Amino acid sequence: MAKFQIPEWAFEFHGHKCPFMPIGYRMGTIALEKLGVGKSHNHEMHVLSEMGVGHPQGCMQDGIMAATGATFGKGLMEKLYYGKVAAIFWYPGKGGMRIVLRNEFADKLAPHEFFKFRKQGIQPSEIPEEVRQDIIDIVLNASVEELFNIEMLPNFEYTPVKGSFAKDKCEVCGEYVFERYLRIKDGKKVCIPCSEHEPEEKGFYYPIFKE
Amino acid sequence: MAKFQIPEWAFEFHGHKCPFMPIGYRMGTIALEKLGVGKSHNHEMHVLSEMGVGHPQGCMQDGIMAATGATFGKGLMEKLYYGKVAAIFWYPGKGGMRIVLRNEFADKLAPHEFFKFRKQGIQPSEIPEEVRQDIIDIVLNASVEELFNIEMLPNFEYTPVKGSFAKDKCEVCGEYVFERYLRIKDGKKVCIPCSEHEPEEKGFYYPIFKE
Repeated sequence: MAKFQIPEWAFEFHGHKCPFMPIGYRMGTIALEKLGVGKSHNHEMHVLSEMGVGHPQGCMQDGIMAATGATFGKGLMEKLYYGKVAAIFWYPGKGGMRIVLRNEFADKLAPHEFFKFRKQGIQPSEIPEEVRQDIIDIVLNASVEELFNIEMLPNFEYTPVKGSFAKDKCEVCGEYVFERYLRIKDGKKVCIPCSEHEPEEKGFYYPIFKE
Repeated sequence: MAKFQIPEWAFEFHGHKCPFMPIGYRMGTIALEKLGVGKSHNHEMHVLSEMGVGHPQGCMQDGIMAATGATFGKGLMEKLYYGKVAAIFWYPGKGGMRIVLRNEFADKLAPHEFFKFRKQGIQPSEIPEEVRQDIIDIVLNASVEELFNIEMLPNFEYTPVKGSFAKDKCEVCGEYVFERYLRIKDGKKVCIPCSEHEPEEKGFYYPIFKE
């Protein structure tokens, strides 16, 4: 049995067995330990993932969410789009920390058969079970020092976006819209699709933080 | 026992019991049924959530991920930032569909004691268990017709971002970076933080789709 254990439901959530969900789960577990906090049942910890788009290993983020409770749905995980297997963890009153997968560990995993299948375009769930279990066990048996570089960021500041329950109906399509996303067209309160402000309109929030 | 059941691990993942994770779980279940597909173990279904930032009810998205396997970590969920309790589901070769929570169902839930607590700033896990179970049961016992407006979008086209495994080390900090996010500074290949292109640099991908 591997030294570190991941609950079966985390694999169930993720959908397949691969090494990067477990890498993220271990990252999240360390963040909780080092910051001295428990899993975020509500809206406590925020995670700024340094992953981007169009590259593999994003599965890490599902592991972080499962371990920490800082989920995308609760608005607690944002991407920084740096293309790195790294994340910043911030907890109110506790400051932050950054965890990055060590190059040496990435290099150790790279020749594994798992990636030969992946680079042929074979999806994780189609890779032989024993190949997947073997690479997962390498992750679960590795020491924290072998896996990650960890930097504490005690002065890290992060300002979560201010929330509001206020909503109203779009006067064109009639659907409910939270006020932040209501626009005006011909004097009417409308949703973004009905406003036809797209595709320029991007009402997203880029996290404000300071190291 | 409620008519519809949600696996306990989905609540474990989400971190608390609230009505919107189950609303999302029911949305996701319907999407699988109507599109005639199973849970996405790998990278099949993509979800464009119409939620934004700074408003409640985003918990819906955790329910959608749990039901469909279209997770944030696997790059299968994006936000459209419209501020609506709605989502578009797309599956390769099957087209898309849109599901939106009915205004009437939102109005039916609105006077519930659960929201009185929430509007006082009380976090879901601090709300009495019986209050939470009662509102969850309302969601689980509602008919599909009562909950949602559903629109099939057979011609909906969506182009997932093209992936690549190529990576290299930043010549300043030495960390691995996926190539899409490597930049050039003083003739060196560097990561975005080392390039000091921030905060202008946003290498994110906004999904391209057509209804």
